[in-house]
Amino acid sequence: MSRPTGAWRHQPQHRGRMWAASPFFRRQLVLLRSLLPQSPPPSSVAGCRFAHLSSPSGTSGSLRAARAMAAATVYEADAEAVVRRITPPLDRARHKGQAGKIAVIGGCREYTGAPYFAAISALKVGADLSHVFCTKDAATVIKSYSPELIVHPILEESYSDCVSNIMKHARQANIPTVVDGDGLFLITNNLGLVEGNPLAILTPNVYEYKRLVQKVLNCDVNEETASEQLMELCHKIGGVTIMQKGKADVICDGKTVTQVSTFGSPRRCGGQGDILSGSVAVFTSWAQHFILSNEQPTEKRVNPTTLGCIAGSLLLRKAASLAFEKNKRSTVTTDIIEFLGKSLEDICPAEH
Amino acid sequence: MSRPTGAWRHQPQHRGRMWAASPFFRRQLVLLRSLLPQSPPPSSVAGCRFAHLSSPSGTSGSLRAARAMAAATVYEADAEAVVRRITPPLDRARHKGQAGKIAVIGGCREYTGAPYFAAISALKVGADLSHVFCTKDAATVIKSYSPELIVHPILEESYSDCVSNIMKHARQANIPTVVDGDGLFLITNNLGLVEGNPLAILTPNVYEYKRLVQKVLNCDVNEETASEQLMELCHKIGGVTIMQKGKADVICDGKTVTQVSTFGSPRRCGGQGDILSGSVAVFTSWAQHFILSNEQPTEKRVNPTTLGCIAGSLLLRKAASLAFEKNKRSTVTTDIIEFLGKSLEDICPAEH
Repeated sequence: MSRPTGAWRHQPQHRGRMWAASPFFRRQLVLLRSLLPQSPPPSSVAGCRFAHLSSPSGTSGSLRAARAMAAATVYEADAEAVVRRITPPLDRARHKGQAGKIAVIGGCREYTGAPYFAAISALKVGADLSHVFCTKDAATVIKSYSPELIVHPILEESYSDCVSNIMKHARQANIPTVVDGDGLFLITNNLGLVEGNPLAILTPNVYEYKRLVQKVLNCDVNEETASEQLMELCHKIGGVTIMQKGKADVICDGKTVTQVSTFGSPRRCGGQGDILSGSVAVFTSWAQHFILSNEQPTEKRVNPTTLGCIAGSLLLRKAASLAFEKNKRSTVTTDIIEFLGKSLEDICPAEH
Repeated sequence: MSRPTGAWRHQPQHRGRMWAASPFFRRQLVLLRSLLPQSPPPSSVAGCRFAHLSSPSGTSGSLRAARAMAAATVYEADAEAVVRRITPPLDRARHKGQAGKIAVIGGCREYTGAPYFAAISALKVGADLSHVFCTKDAATVIKSYSPELIVHPILEESYSDCVSNIMKHARQANIPTVVDGDGLFLITNNLGLVEGNPLAILTPNVYEYKRLVQKVLNCDVNEETASEQLMELCHKIGGVTIMQKGKADVICDGKTVTQVSTFGSPRRCGGQGDILSGSVAVFTSWAQHFILSNEQPTEKRVNPTTLGCIAGSLLLRKAASLAFEKNKRSTVTTDIIEFLGKSLEDICPAEH
């Protein structure tokens, strides 16, 4: 996979500094360089049609449900088929980086676990290189979690402006961008950062989604018209993909609404959303490449972001289920990450 | 579980600074915000009576014993039944934070292990989020122990005044508070901090208990009237719960005296008290919610702090026993923490 993907998290308070004019501009160029695409890998996945949509899940006979289905039918994704389609075969001729590079922008004085979880999950899913761009304080700690990550201590404690610029550059370079955690606060106050970017993915949890709806649609979350509201939110923000995390993860790219409801685990330990960010980033990158290298009739093309979200959601749920089976109530995020590999192997064996 | 719980530890020497007027006041607001309750979770435990008291352990026929029994009979807790009653079922509809949030206040230049043990134990027992509030020096180290914890480097090296204020706020918000280690020195010199707080739990070991008795009751520990003395101490401090740690853990809330004497391990490695603090905090929070969501006749209501102490004591003893069976003389606190999950699962299977 030639293109890196980004999962942006945890930017502290805006200080109003212009990024391009700031003294840390040069240091941050290393970040942009790491995002530049390598030469594209050879296409190696056989052309095949996507099979990610199965039956609609809303089947109530009520008028309301009928209206809802007409407006925004929610399909249950055939998520295993999606994972199998977009995961690239392991090709002996490939070089380091071609199976994916990820840049996680996050990590400050307070938060170090979240960017670590996202970055290590990307590696465990199958990316070749995982970079973390964070503050100096956070870097020492994140480095100590794992020698596998490349950690760049180049951000200032207040790095909203910087993240905004990175998002603009990522967009120009067609790099899929996952926005989670505090990144959602940033874009809620500046929708222009993701507006009209078909490769931007927002992954709000229940609280973050509520805030997004209130800020963008100027109303409260309405459970009865949930999928229409999600569709409206996508349109209002303009062409982005939103994965609304919950009991089922509901994914909308402004055209279709798909959900993954495979049961994962009843444990709600903090950090699972970070696994998802890292995994979705890698899968979206793979899906993007799959679509580019397998000619599809335009009308049959599915958004790579939708595919990435479906695959990431399923993988987290499978891994959480296995981790819970083993560790029960004491399951923590690290236990789940340990099962990402087995979960992917169960769906899509490396030697297929 | 909607309410976070706190385990306060290790505050160094008082410097007489006013917390509210201090320059770090604003930074510390993040701590208070993290303590604010979320909307309460749905009640999901079926109404049932507590079954935590079994037979009195003092059965001597002497006059003195008869007097002691009349004054403060010590009951052996049916601790397994308590754990089963208060541990919430894992509900698929719940969100992150609803199974418990804990804030550990502790960790300075010298001590980093204790707050880590308390915070990670809370997660392993089943809390969703575990925060540590400590000094900057301690934060880097505690973060590096585990990416699962959220560590806030916001305390000054001398933070007695700050801890005092946190305790006052926790009390106003009905948040159970476990006071251990150096926190016990703080409250010994300022009983007003816990006086009349029914959700305050003191967990002194043999030395700390001796000091408490000397300071508060102005006399030495008397083994012959141990339970009456414990009861008197509770009354003098005013409505708090005290768990006197020892061969048996003896728990008194000023009304009843209960003990847990299940054998744990002969190993006395440092740090086991920290496991206890973290576990008791989570269990008390669960017990508080259980009591609030299951209407009990007033006369049958048991203090959530007593239930929390019983459950925490049993779980530590079970885990210590399993860890000792495996590691014998080389057992350390981390080995015991590894068995918290299995111990809870043995008593109260996650799928119950």
